[in-house]
Amino acid sequence: MRMYDLIMKKRNGMELSTEEINFFVDGYTKGAIPDYQVSALMMAIYFQKMNKRETADLTMAMVNSGETIDLSAIKGKKVDKHSTGGVGDTTTLILGPIVAAAGVPVAKMSGRGLGHTGGTIDKLESFKGFSVEMPIEKFVEDVNTIKISVVGQTANLAPADKKLYALRDVTATVDNLSLIASSIMSKKIAAGADAIVLDVKTGSGAFMKEGNSAFELAKEMVDIGNNVGRNTIGVVTDMDQPLGFAVGNILEVEEAIDTLRGHGPKDLTELCLTLGSHMLVLADRAENAGEARKILQNVIKSGEGIKKLKEFVTAQGGDASCIDNPELFEKASIIEPVLAPQDGYVKGIKADDIGLAALVLGAGRETKESPIDLAVGVVLQKKIGDYVAKGEPIAIIHANDKAKKEAAEKMIIDAFNITSEKVEARALIRGIVTKNGIEKY
Amino acid sequence: MRMYDLIMKKRNGMELSTEEINFFVDGYTKGAIPDYQVSALMMAIYFQKMNKRETADLTMAMVNSGETIDLSAIKGKKVDKHSTGGVGDTTTLILGPIVAAAGVPVAKMSGRGLGHTGGTIDKLESFKGFSVEMPIEKFVEDVNTIKISVVGQTANLAPADKKLYALRDVTATVDNLSLIASSIMSKKIAAGADAIVLDVKTGSGAFMKEGNSAFELAKEMVDIGNNVGRNTIGVVTDMDQPLGFAVGNILEVEEAIDTLRGHGPKDLTELCLTLGSHMLVLADRAENAGEARKILQNVIKSGEGIKKLKEFVTAQGGDASCIDNPELFEKASIIEPVLAPQDGYVKGIKADDIGLAALVLGAGRETKESPIDLAVGVVLQKKIGDYVAKGEPIAIIHANDKAKKEAAEKMIIDAFNITSEKVEARALIRGIVTKNGIEKY
Repeated sequence: MRMYDLIMKKRNGMELSTEEINFFVDGYTKGAIPDYQVSALMMAIYFQKMNKRETADLTMAMVNSGETIDLSAIKGKKVDKHSTGGVGDTTTLILGPIVAAAGVPVAKMSGRGLGHTGGTIDKLESFKGFSVEMPIEKFVEDVNTIKISVVGQTANLAPADKKLYALRDVTATVDNLSLIASSIMSKKIAAGADAIVLDVKTGSGAFMKEGNSAFELAKEMVDIGNNVGRNTIGVVTDMDQPLGFAVGNILEVEEAIDTLRGHGPKDLTELCLTLGSHMLVLADRAENAGEARKILQNVIKSGEGIKKLKEFVTAQGGDASCIDNPELFEKASIIEPVLAPQDGYVKGIKADDIGLAALVLGAGRETKESPIDLAVGVVLQKKIGDYVAKGEPIAIIHANDKAKKEAAEKMIIDAFNITSEKVEARALIRGIVTKNGIEKY
Repeated sequence: MRMYDLIMKKRNGMELSTEEINFFVDGYTKGAIPDYQVSALMMAIYFQKMNKRETADLTMAMVNSGETIDLSAIKGKKVDKHSTGGVGDTTTLILGPIVAAAGVPVAKMSGRGLGHTGGTIDKLESFKGFSVEMPIEKFVEDVNTIKISVVGQTANLAPADKKLYALRDVTATVDNLSLIASSIMSKKIAAGADAIVLDVKTGSGAFMKEGNSAFELAKEMVDIGNNVGRNTIGVVTDMDQPLGFAVGNILEVEEAIDTLRGHGPKDLTELCLTLGSHMLVLADRAENAGEARKILQNVIKSGEGIKKLKEFVTAQGGDASCIDNPELFEKASIIEPVLAPQDGYVKGIKADDIGLAALVLGAGRETKESPIDLAVGVVLQKKIGDYVAKGEPIAIIHANDKAKKEAAEKMIIDAFNITSEKVEARALIRGIVTKNGIEKY
């Protein structure tokens, strides 16, 4: 087999066989096939696309390019959740405890990552002493006893994906549905998921700015999952404004605690109940989403959710006392409101720009080495559809640096679009994608 | 400027500016832009094409990537000829002397190259002592005095083209008209041509197997030439069977001598008169192709053409005595006919396969280091349209090895398609392409 022939075949619009896909993924991972041939193939794929079979094959070839996590020692179906990323997304900190409290194992492998705020691990480290460093045996035991554990990703999962993504990133070959979908799915599958619930964001703060493309991406991933024997469901959700109110690490943890107590933001609560209920169904804990939703609502109402968070934090060495005493969390030195420049209705809040404001304040990482300030961030006071009077706070800034606070303030004011006409609040859940099709709301 | 943005732009079907094309060619030549980004761009160009302006800019960027030859010390317009390559093509050895004898300077830079037979330099070395190693001053002086000289290509002409071609060759991005055309034209322009006559081959023995694509390639090159101030004309010619009868080095030289004496193969003579007359017109030596043709026919008839070959060979240290005494040329040890396996009309002669037979006999190079056997090759006895009786020779093999002779014999028999129906002889000249359009015959 020659890489040249594979490029030519795809260039000419032909289908690559399973053997051909394995050949190139394996050869590229081992360094036997050079970057310049792979980037040419990626561009050919960009133009000629891959069909469902090729996409599933590419996913499994990337899964098999490195280690895979064996979670078979954990009892029950392991359902993972993946979000395509957005601003102010604290779902894991809420979903994990409520799903675990409902009796479904949550065995999560997580990273730090780059972004407007830290990743799930950074947020969890808001609890002093919390650690994700543990032997796989303790991870498995914790999940089997308290149903939840988060471990740092140390294994060499899907190295082919890492190498391919880095190449696509510099050769303008990122935005192809098959390539995006297989990249995401390969990591989830390598991490040992039996079933997967996907939260695909759409809107100004999402990778997929446009609704249709979010549904297409969701369908592509759902099809991969089901084609390789992982029951997968996609939920397409709005990210035209930040999710919830808080954007920042500790600020989001506090919001998660509020939500677990039953008085979190409406949109964040709704998203967690929707994603969680699909997780329960995929784990055979409930017959249907309606029944599952009731179980989860009850978990929150009864206090089992917040109790599970405490158990979880404690089991990983964290100080859970601040869950009941939020004043114990580290606080920023400057806490000041951003005032509305005019009367009117909030028509839009550019999620990306609010995220950038949080990044400017120090909440996120620009490079892998950047330190993170856990205390800083933004707490929105108004969302789309709300009325605001001139001079009323639209957001509260938590900062540790005056100049950064001023820069963030400007960005937040620019991010808000306030008009005189009345504006409808936005629906959060846009639709559900299953192997049987797409249902738009 | 970032290479990433250029790839994205072209991928999305947009036009690259002159500055952008210069940026990437310059960066790639210097090694500042990596192969993997350039191969992605080449694949994007394959799908999205380049317009005439971009193609002309790419050509000049490649010209300017290295040395260019200054032929201004040579009096008169320097008209170069380029052939897209075929089997049994001896035109340079005939065209050079007749055009020079007509008073038009022939300042040729040539290489050895890989192929079925050697390149022009290898063929010229059939004259013992002939050398193409000389200082540029002697080259210029020879052209000014006897109107013809051939020098070996030592300068670093269009290095960007060399690097790009090598990359395209392994990434399935060769067959794009703009890229093929700019590659050819950049080398001709860097070698100092003021005007160019192109011989674009079509048919089974050519790179462009199909007539239309040969015309498209010719038009692309003609447009480049005229867009960058080099008057250029393209002649599309048949290569569905080998040109002339001889395929081999000394065998082709002998055929060239015959042609210069006025009794060469009809097709080879016709091709040289056609290409030569366009060269005379571009060099302002004749008003039109008809007048130019008469000048060249007269050059052959009067013996000035063969006299010019002797002068030329002698000036470069070669022994010209074999021009009048062909028996002095080195001869192969085995000279045997290939006999027709049946009665009938020759319907086709696969040019590629005849070329391969010559290569098997040792007439060409498979790698840069391969030695060449100047004496061996194939001399066809029949061409398309001819009648042949079973047992009559269809070709004569000149070999120095019995096993190779037998292999070549089999290939030649397979290359001939002999049928019982009468077959029309093929027209050699298929059309002319100028800046004003395409004229098909």
